[in-house]
Amino acid sequence: MSSSQESPQLPTTAITANNTLKATTERWFEYSVRVQPHHTDYAGIVWHGTYLTWMETARVEYLRSIGIDFADLIRLGCDIYVVDLSLHYHRGLQLGEIAIVKTRMTEMTGVQMYCDYRIESSDRQQVYVTGKVTLVAVDLEKGKIMRQLPPAVQDAFIKMLE
Amino acid sequence: MSSSQESPQLPTTAITANNTLKATTERWFEYSVRVQPHHTDYAGIVWHGTYLTWMETARVEYLRSIGIDFADLIRLGCDIYVVDLSLHYHRGLQLGEIAIVKTRMTEMTGVQMYCDYRIESSDRQQVYVTGKVTLVAVDLEKGKIMRQLPPAVQDAFIKMLE
Amino acid sequence: MSSSQESPQLPTTAITANNTLKATTERWFEYSVRVQPHHTDYAGIVWHGTYLTWMETARVEYLRSIGIDFADLIRLGCDIYVVDLSLHYHRGLQLGEIAIVKTRMTEMTGVQMYCDYRIESSDRQQVYVTGKVTLVAVDLEKGKIMRQLPPAVQDAFIKMLE
Amino acid sequence: MSSSQESPQLPTTAITANNTLKATTERWFEYSVRVQPHHTDYAGIVWHGTYLTWMETARVEYLRSIGIDFADLIRLGCDIYVVDLSLHYHRGLQLGEIAIVKTRMTEMTGVQMYCDYRIESSDRQQVYVTGKVTLVAVDLEKGKIMRQLPPAVQDAFIKMLE
Repeated sequence: MSSSQESPQLPTTAITANNTLKATTERWFEYSVRVQPHHTDYAGIVWHGTYLTWMETARVEYLRSIGIDFADLIRLGCDIYVVDLSLHYHRGLQLGEIAIVKTRMTEMTGVQMYCDYRIESSDRQQVYVTGKVTLVAVDLEKGKIMRQLPPAVQDAFIKMLE
Repeated sequence: MSSSQESPQLPTTAITANNTLKATTERWFEYSVRVQPHHTDYAGIVWHGTYLTWMETARVEYLRSIGIDFADLIRLGCDIYVVDLSLHYHRGLQLGEIAIVKTRMTEMTGVQMYCDYRIESSDRQQVYVTGKVTLVAVDLEKGKIMRQLPPAVQDAFIKMLE
Repeated sequence: MSSSQESPQLPTTAITANNTLKATTERWFEYSVRVQPHHTDYAGIVWHGTYLTWMETARVEYLRSIGIDFADLIRLGCDIYVVDLSLHYHRGLQLGEIAIVKTRMTEMTGVQMYCDYRIESSDRQQVYVTGKVTLVAVDLEKGKIMRQLPPAVQDAFIKMLE
Repeated sequence: MSSSQESPQLPTTAITANNTLKATTERWFEYSVRVQPHHTDYAGIVWHGTYLTWMETARVEYLRSIGIDFADLIRLGCDIYVVDLSLHYHRGLQLGEIAIVKTRMTEMTGVQMYCDYRIESSDRQQVYVTGKVTLVAVDLEKGKIMRQLPPAVQDAFIKMLE
């Protein structure tokens, strides 16, 4: 991740706890995954908890796509926790099928980030799962919610939302 | 699970899709689990998806406590799918700690069942996770939502809600 | 997967229970994976059981690379079970690192297949895990070990070993 | 876990890298688990990697039974890593069945510990999985294999082997 020194001029105070920034586009980041045996359960379809592993990977790769390396972020002392999660299961996926995990950040308020998810078939004709996840930045040393995001992270998020 | 033939006299039409039965008590079923290494992630606390495995086990043991053996239910051709799930994460659990996974069915409408969850510390002073899960009965052969629960299952649920 | 009708002329009886075919090359199939949060445990490295999910995915993609679609194979009534597994853990992988999961079939005796694994860093300078897995073809309907592989599957394996 | 100060008189140098202590009994520690939906895969039986979660839990509870709290051990700066693992799969377990995970330490050489596993049916008439795991004590701060176990831990192990 680029360090904060590289972008001192950016409006890093744009987002505060009293200040919400909403996405102005509806672009999705797409991550694809094929259903493997360990994703399924006795019913022959994907076990309902497996989707959380796919959504996590999609989120980490989404961050990478906007220039944020999650492992670097943690090394900087900033972790990102899931604080809220809601999923609606529309239809099951079977062994060998390919899912497109679509993610996008819809909003940011202070150190809270809101993401939408849609898990679809590769031809986008079937919707398997839709969901929402709320994330919060945590100071790893203090074990507490951060007051403000590391500037470079915030800047990357603002850039993406605009 | 006792088969439907054993209880023909019970009011099995009590719950239909237009007919909601709400729990009249707030009794929780409690299942306890200790945090093991495979439950945790790099942050040293329970990974956010692990709770779904605990909640599932709690649900299966809850059903057992009211006389429904989940494996028997499946052998009868009736599966129970998670269709909606929402979780709020309040606080992380660490390796070796004990969690009490509290479950209760709050409502039933036709073949849909609504469950509440609270994951607490063993002294009940800390709340780690709260959540809601909606379940639906699925006809395994047809791969579709059932029109009606197997009578003995419905009777067990009604008995528990009352 | 191509059906057996498409290759009647191939020597499908070449491999029997008394008849071992050894690989004549040391080509590895490579599958790469990045360490995600759900792969790790409290120690900050990949949990020792996570590698089995990677090895399984590598195996399924390896089969695909030689023309065998695992889901099709199951639809044909042939499953492949792990019957023996041994792993040696050399070194842990950290969050965000990339692992190359190298797989190759070394031998085939009747319906038993032997695979070697090496999990390495992306520059191939570090070895994280080495292992061996023995697989066996199971007749899904009878629930028993097959007497012979489906011809097209056997042919694909023979071709790859040669 | 009792700290090393409490047992200064014990023969803590009894086990060194050149010095192997073998178990003189064949007592097994038993941990039981019921097969839950998330343990299974599309084949309707326990997924082959699930056993590693059960074996880990059995191992942690086994340590607890001889007075070693795994989380305390880690707080003392001593982690225990799996370095070798071999499993033989005899038979699959189905949803709702109960498995008895039997564990025993067979040998100790320096900071390496050898454990045997047998996963059986509750009536002990079926063997599902047999296996061996080699563990090694790691200094968490240095990230290296320890030269010697914390004295109290070593003493607990010696006591159990004798």
